[in-house]
This record gives sequence, C-alpha cells and structure tokens, in this order.
Amino acid sequence: MHKATDRSSKDGQNGNPDGGNDAGLPSSEKTYVEGQGDVRVPVRKITLSNDDAPVYVYDTSGPQGQDVRKGLLPLRRPWIEARGDCEAVEPGDRGPSEIPGGLRRRVLRGRENVTQMHYARKGVVTPEMEFIALRENVAPEFVRSEVARGRAIIPANINHLELEPMIIGRNFLVKINANIGNSAVTSSIEEEVEKLQWAVQWGADTVMDLSTGKNIHETREWILRNSPAPIGTVPIYQALEKVDGKAEELTWEVYRDTLLEQCEQGVDYFTVHAGVLLRYIPLTASRVTGIVSRGGSILAKWCLAHHRENFLYTHFREICEIMKHYDVSFSLGDGLRPGCIADANDEAQFGELRTQGELTRIAWEYDVQVMNEGPGHVPMHLIKENMEKQLEWCNEAPFYTLGPLTTDIAPGYDHITSAIGAAMIGWFGTAMLCYVTPKEHLGLPNKQDVKDGVIAYKIAAHAADLAKGHPGARVRDDAISKARFEFRWEDQFNLSLDPETARKYHDETLPAPGAKLAHFCSMCGPHFCSMKITQDVRDYAAQKRVEVEEALKIGMEEKAEEFKERGAEIYQKA
Amino acid sequence: MHKATDRSSKDGQNGNPDGGNDAGLPSSEKTYVEGQGDVRVPVRKITLSNDDAPVYVYDTSGPQGQDVRKGLLPLRRPWIEARGDCEAVEPGDRGPSEIPGGLRRRVLRGRENVTQMHYARKGVVTPEMEFIALRENVAPEFVRSEVARGRAIIPANINHLELEPMIIGRNFLVKINANIGNSAVTSSIEEEVEKLQWAVQWGADTVMDLSTGKNIHETREWILRNSPAPIGTVPIYQALEKVDGKAEELTWEVYRDTLLEQCEQGVDYFTVHAGVLLRYIPLTASRVTGIVSRGGSILAKWCLAHHRENFLYTHFREICEIMKHYDVSFSLGDGLRPGCIADANDEAQFGELRTQGELTRIAWEYDVQVMNEGPGHVPMHLIKENMEKQLEWCNEAPFYTLGPLTTDIAPGYDHITSAIGAAMIGWFGTAMLCYVTPKEHLGLPNKQDVKDGVIAYKIAAHAADLAKGHPGARVRDDAISKARFEFRWEDQFNLSLDPETARKYHDETLPAPGAKLAHFCSMCGPHFCSMKITQDVRDYAAQKRVEVEEALKIGMEEKAEEFKERGAEIYQKA
Repeated sequence: MHKATDRSSKDGQNGNPDGGNDAGLPSSEKTYVEGQGDVRVPVRKITLSNDDAPVYVYDTSGPQGQDVRKGLLPLRRPWIEARGDCEAVEPGDRGPSEIPGGLRRRVLRGRENVTQMHYARKGVVTPEMEFIALRENVAPEFVRSEVARGRAIIPANINHLELEPMIIGRNFLVKINANIGNSAVTSSIEEEVEKLQWAVQWGADTVMDLSTGKNIHETREWILRNSPAPIGTVPIYQALEKVDGKAEELTWEVYRDTLLEQCEQGVDYFTVHAGVLLRYIPLTASRVTGIVSRGGSILAKWCLAHHRENFLYTHFREICEIMKHYDVSFSLGDGLRPGCIADANDEAQFGELRTQGELTRIAWEYDVQVMNEGPGHVPMHLIKENMEKQLEWCNEAPFYTLGPLTTDIAPGYDHITSAIGAAMIGWFGTAMLCYVTPKEHLGLPNKQDVKDGVIAYKIAAHAADLAKGHPGARVRDDAISKARFEFRWEDQFNLSLDPETARKYHDETLPAPGAKLAHFCSMCGPHFCSMKITQDVRDYAAQKRVEVEEALKIGMEEKAEEFKERGAEIYQKA
Repeated sequence: MHKATDRSSKDGQNGNPDGGNDAGLPSSEKTYVEGQGDVRVPVRKITLSNDDAPVYVYDTSGPQGQDVRKGLLPLRRPWIEARGDCEAVEPGDRGPSEIPGGLRRRVLRGRENVTQMHYARKGVVTPEMEFIALRENVAPEFVRSEVARGRAIIPANINHLELEPMIIGRNFLVKINANIGNSAVTSSIEEEVEKLQWAVQWGADTVMDLSTGKNIHETREWILRNSPAPIGTVPIYQALEKVDGKAEELTWEVYRDTLLEQCEQGVDYFTVHAGVLLRYIPLTASRVTGIVSRGGSILAKWCLAHHRENFLYTHFREICEIMKHYDVSFSLGDGLRPGCIADANDEAQFGELRTQGELTRIAWEYDVQVMNEGPGHVPMHLIKENMEKQLEWCNEAPFYTLGPLTTDIAPGYDHITSAIGAAMIGWFGTAMLCYVTPKEHLGLPNKQDVKDGVIAYKIAAHAADLAKGHPGARVRDDAISKARFEFRWEDQFNLSLDPETARKYHDETLPAPGAKLAHFCSMCGPHFCSMKITQDVRDYAAQKRVEVEEALKIGMEEKAEEFKERGAEIYQKA
C-alpha cells in the first residue's frame, strides 16, 4: 500500500533487529517510514528478483525477537508524557499474581479526558494520528477529522504503551481482528502469547483476548505487554468469574471494578453488551438458536433473574466516565446477533442495533470512541441491510462484524462460509472484520487454525479494499500478477499472503530448483502454457517496435508464412 | 432439499448395496426416489438422533462399490433405446488402446437430432427430464420449458449411458464443476478415476477431464464409464497433442476428428473457444497477464500464425451439426477471460462475450444446448456487470464461471479468494461454478485439494441457493442449527458438508465420547455457554405454558426472587 520512500530505514540500522517470527516471509524485511519527531511506522518491504521497485505492504507483526518476559518497548511513552495530562496511580489490589517483574509498568490515568476523539475534536493531531497517517498513506488532518466525526476510532489505551497505533474506519483499509484466549477447558498463558504473536505476524490488526478460564488477569498482562496491536476484551467474562459463574450474582460494582482493572492494564477496547435490553430478550424465544453471544446470554440471564433492565445500560454513562480517563474504546456488543441463517435480521437483532445507536451517541457526548459489533450468521441477500441500518442508526460509527457466515452447513470450514460474507460486508462499509477459524462451533482454535482464520480474513479484507477502490490496494495484486506472468516464481511466492504455503504447493509437483526458473509449471506443461504463449505475442510486438494492433492491421498473410518457417514458436525471442 | 417420500427405497433393498466411498458420511444412506417407469433418483438420507424427520440431500456420488474395470450400469440405455432414433455405428480407429473389455460399449449416433433441447422444443418430456424434476423437486414440464427456452441445459451425451441426469440453469440449484486430468508432467489414469469418484462423493455435479498428457483417450474412457456425473472436455487439448503440440499445425480436420472421437466416447459437454476472434487478440497485448486460458492461447497462436479467423468460429455450424447427433452440449469457452484483477472486464473479455452470444443463438438454431463460460479474476465490484451482460448478450443461456477470484495475492488459498466471487455470482444468476483448488496457479490438485475445492464450492453454491431463496435450500441449515442449539453433536457432524472433519475438530479438544452428550463444548466451558442459557430461557417458557413475552409483561419482581432461591440455574428443567 505504501510507496517507496527514502525516509524508510531498516530495523538493522536502528539497533532493533528482527528475529524469529518473520521466518515465514522470505525476501522481505521490516523497514520504517520516518515521520515527525520519533514517529516511525513499520512497513514490510518485499524485494523482487527483477528491476521492479520493491513492494511495501502494511505490517502488523510488531517488533520481533523480544523477550516475552520483558515485553515490547514502550513506544508511546514519550507521546503520552508530552501531553502532560496523565498521572501515575496506584493500581487496585488484584490479588496474588505471577507477573514477571519485567512486565510490570507504572499505571497511568488521565486527569481529565484523554481520548483520541477528545484531542481530535479540539483540533489536535496527536502522534498516534501522525503514525496512522503514514501507515495509511493519508493526510494527518484527515485522520483527525474522521476520529472527531466518530467515523473512525484509534483504540489506544494510555496504559498500552507498546501499541503501534492503527485506525478502524470505513475510509481506511479494512482491518481484521483475531480472537484468542483460553477457556476453562484448555490452553495455557504461553500458548496464548504465542497465538498473539502468530496472529499479528500473519496480519491481525487487533486481537481480542477472550479468556474465560483461570488466570484471566495474568494472561491478559502477558498479552498486553507483548502486543503491538490493540487488545480488546469482554469484561463481563472476568466479572462472571469473580462471582463464580453465577450470572444472577453479577453487580454493577463487580463489573465496574473489573473495568477499572482492565483500564489500568491497558486494554484498548471493551465489548460492552449494553444493548441487550430486557424487552428484546423475549424476541429471541422463537429463534432457532436463541442467543448465541456469550456476553449476550449472561446479560439476558441477569435481566430475567432480576427482571430489571440490563445494568450495563442503566450505568452506561458511568462506564463512559471511566473509559474517558484511559481512552478505552467501546465495541458495543451485539449480544442478540443471529446464530443461524434462520434468525438473521430479526426483530431482536435490529432492536439491539437501534439501541447501539442510542448508546453510540451517548458515548460521543463523553468523547469516548465507539465501534459497533455486528453479525453473525446472515445469508448473502440480507447482508447489505445490516450495513445500511448500522450506518443510519449508529451515525456512521465504525461497524465491526463477525463474518457474517453465509450458511450453517459447513462446520470445519466456517473460515470460508464467513469469508464470503466478510468480504461483502467489508466492501459495503464494515471497518473491521472479526475472523472466524475452521474450529468455529467445534472447539478452540490452535495455532494452525489462527493462521487459517487470519489468512482467510486478510483475503476478505483485501478483496473489500479492492472493491472499494482503495488507492494503492491493487499494487500488490498487480505485482504478483506480473510476477506470475513473467514466471518469476520466487517473486510470486514472496508477494503472496503466505509464501511458505505457496512454495510448498508448487514444490509438491516440481521440487527441483530449476523448475522455479521454468517458463511453465506442472499444471499445463510446456505446450499448453498460455502465459508463455502470451509472452511470445508480446515479445513479438516489442521486437517489431510496432503495436500488435498495427501489426495485425497491415495485412500479414506473407508474414504468417515466414513465422511458420522459423519453427514451432511463432514469436521467437530476438 | 427433498421431502421425505414413501416412494424412496434403500439401495440395500434393490440389490445395489453401497460400498466404500460413503465412509466419510456417517448416519446417512443412499435411497432412491422412484418416479415413472424405471426412473429412480438417488438422494442421501441423513438420519437424526432425535424424533425429527430425516434430512434428504441432493446426492451426486453415484452407485458405489462398482468394479472400475467394468464401469457403472448403463442406466439410460432403455430410455435411449425407447426413443428409437439412434443407431449403432462403428467407431473410428483410435489407434492402440488399453481399455479393458468390461469398459467397451456399443457406439450410438442419432439418426437425426437427439438433443434434449430438440425433444423439449417438440414438447416431449424425456425420462432425463423426469429424473431431474424429481431431483430438483420441480414439475417435469418446468424442466422441459427451461431446456426448450435455452435457459437450462441437460448435458447428456447418448453415449454416456452411465449418467444420472442433472440440469444446469439459474432456476435450479446452483451446480459446481470439479476439474481433474493429468498433464505431461504428472498423474496416472488410476489416480484420475479416483479423483473423479472422490469429487462426486463430496458433491461435484459435473467433472471436466482436462488431461493433456499421454493416454488422453484411455483416461477419458475410464472416466466416462465410471462417472455418474456429466463429463466435460476441451477437445482442442487432444487435437493439439495430435499435432505434437504445434498450435499452428492445427487444422479443422484434426479438430473435427477429435470431436467425433469424443462424441462417440460419450463426453457430455465440450469447451469450444470459438469466440476468440482474430480482432480481439491484440486487445490482450496491454494486459498484465495477457491470455490465461490454455485453449484461448492455443487459438490465439493459431490465428496469429495464419492471420486467419479462428477455425472454430468459421466452422461453428459444422460443429453444431456434429454435436446434435450425440447431444453434446456447448460450453462456449472464454479464452480471453481476465487472469488478474487488473485485466477484469476489459474490452477483450467483453468482446468475446458478445461473440459467445452470437454463437449461442447459432447453436440454438440446431437445437444444440449451450452454456457460456465466464471469468476468472474479477474484483467484487465488477462481478455483477459480468452477469448482467451475459444474461443480456447471451439470451439467458446458463453462465458457468471459474470463480471468480476476488484478489490475486493469495496463491495457496485461491479456493477461498474464488469462493467469495463464486458465491456472489451464483447469487446473481450463474448456474454452475467451476471450482478452484488451493493449488490453483501452483500445481495440479491432489486428492485433498480436490476435496478442499469441492467443499469450498459446495459452500459457495449453497450460499447462493440461500440468497436466491431457493425453496427448500434452508432445510439443511435449519436442521444443523437446531442440532447445534440442542447439543446434538453427532447430528451436527452428520448434517455437515464434511462430517469427518467436523468431528475431528471437535475431538481435538474434547475427545471423550461423553463430550458429545455434553451441553457445552471446549470453546466456552459450562458457565459461558450461551446455547445452554437460551435453552434455559426457552424451557422456562414451555414449563410455564405462557409465552415468555407474557411472562415478562405481568410484572415478575417476586418471581425473580423465587428463581434465585431455586439455585444457580434460573430456569430449571421440570
């Protein structure tokens, strides 16, 4: 997406050498686009084997080769300190914890409002916005105005100093989120940190830690300190653990303390299911799959048990008050999203969406950033309506959808059923696509599933960028297609989303090194290679220094004879 | 898609027991819907673990457990003989051949026109049409009228007696094609027959044999005699082998003899690149990837070498004359389809599409059935235009597209990049989707790739059927969603496109047999299971025999207290 720039500099020249994680991305290196002050934006430079300019692609992988027990460098510290509007606070007692000393950080709190939206509305272009402007190849002022308008968000808790800022909004590149997190049944902290690194290596723009098992606090601490990407959570999960899984025993106080705990840790966005109103719950009773959101069902249970309005709704302004001091963004949950094709676009779903709009406008009163979560399972013909209603009812706040899955019949392949819907809704205007892995509905994703989910969603997001006509999005497509046409196999592999897999598949049939120089492949063999024939046609035109059009116009019957005499290949290279 | 019917009968009761291939589809059996005379339509019956009616799904797998050296039973022989309009002919000399005696068949030729379109236009409902009517759950007369109109085709060569008839048209279920075939570089006959059986087991509706290496004739014979699905070919491939790969030495005579050879073998549809006109070729010179169709490039090379019009175009009426005697359908090739995003919807592509329309109308003069091949690589926002132009310019003849791929940057994952485009164009009206496997652009597909491609395309086709509102398409989605909601894990697996994989993924985290009865899974654990909570809500409503809506309206503060007293679960089962 980026043009080559002489402001870029290699990691190696800046004492920050890349290690391990880039192993899957040969012939590429991380460089930095240098901005104002200490703003340095990572970008991955893919060097080609011919004279063509290198291709620069958006890079989410973060600094590599860091000790996970020390975490990443606190990139944003000078920016936040320079604003001078935060103070160090003593964090609440979080009980016994096994967090290594190297991961411990001073906890910050804004004295007043410290959200990016707040600055944007005051006309201030922050270093975060400058970073993003370089990352997206747009003007800093444009970033500011989109954030001020609420049409884009920069999830960037002041306690997440390790963050490389990014933006979520439909006038920017379409983003993807990867979910990780353990459950009561499986998985360890180390595995989750590894999944985080793995997810951002392959292109996840944000990561949600959906842990529900033991060690929620510790797991999150490790993840945050090692994440260059914004981290989202669903605080109700931890709150529920605090009341031993008894939804009806949840209280505003328990929830509030959980929010504060996570604000202090540096979580960048919270999924808050404040739109699950008491009156919507009965609307789900006749559904095929009822309520499928974990958070939604917890709140529904609470509402029914107490026969009172959702406490997240009734305390929503207090939540805004908390979040504005840390710049945590809302991801307004869609607790009543459809869990199957039959339930798509029903009254419960759209009721909640209207309430999400109401809550969006309230959050904006506090300059708190907001995006809205969306479905789910939706057949193709009902997808657009979701986008249109969200834009209208939620005043163009960024939409963040899970898929949607376009059919229910393919468990094991829901990265595909949902990539279809995700690409479409991304084109229609969804700003971020929450990935779905092949394990959806069946189990927790392992490392391979995370990669499969991320790649499927990079495809969906990029297809959406192309369809939206995003300037520069096609550069990579054109480069890989040119490489393909010119039989530059190595370049074709290196420019692809997953070079290792592309190479492996090629080598299954033609493993010899020479085959990567061959002007054909195993699919057609030499006689049938259309690319080669086209090349012949083109070479001929170049050789004759006339356009092929001309050549064809000037009557070539006798030429044809001549070509045949010259042998099997019509248009020999000179 | 099918309703249960008491006309169905099990294979086992009819002396035609199923074997091996169905191993991947537990709790399902092939049954037959009995029609008029000897019309028996296969359907797969999936039995559920509860009292719900079994789910019947369209079945493409064909008779199982047959000896591949004898081929399938000649199902259509009595139908064709009853029409009395064919005669046995002596096949041309095809040189030395190693075809087992058990695969040899008498060769038929229609004395006059024997196409399904010809019968349809005369008002005749053939047994093939009756078969299809039962298979698609529509009236036989509707099948006839769509075929007569040219809006649907029944690819059914009179020499492919083993065929279970199917229909391709946008007012029927969306179909998928799987490509198999060896190349000069790799693969054996046995492997190709195995891929055929594998492809139809997983749901391929038609199969194209794109072999280009040695033994083209023998490979095709084995495939045809063992295929319950229509087989398509690109005859120019074999013609080119006959002139030792020298495109410029191709002649009409060599091509015509190849057509006859394949007509006599029983090929059901031919890809014919008659639309690659001399004047379109220069339009490809400025493309990023030129001509990417093998057939298109061969013809382009021939045209340029001779500086004459494409001989398939100039001899098109003679081709129609041949094909009408065997009922081979045209699949009018798109030799100039775009091979990358940059080349989508260009002048060359649309020039050829207009010519495809012209050729469609000519074929219809001969009552020869026609579908039109379409792209290729197309970004999402340009997909609809392809469909609209094809409908208009080709008079609603069925469209048959390759993908389209919605981005170029994911070699190794092009089953996904293309499933996105395929689902969309299927929704817009494409009648058949040609699959793309993960190996596209990289190598020939192996068995796993064939399966991955077929499953991705079953997803795309089914998503399209849902979006089109095809009556009955949602039955399977609803059944699987209900099973999911009710924790009938085995039913969820068995109803899915790939039960084995779904089960394997589930078992990775919870392998114990008891876990398949558990009312939660590894994703959330028991406290967080939204499905369970919703079930509680619903059980409560049932228990109270009032609608939940009512329950909530009648003021339930005190009830709430009562529930809490009853323990952790609000809505206990009675």
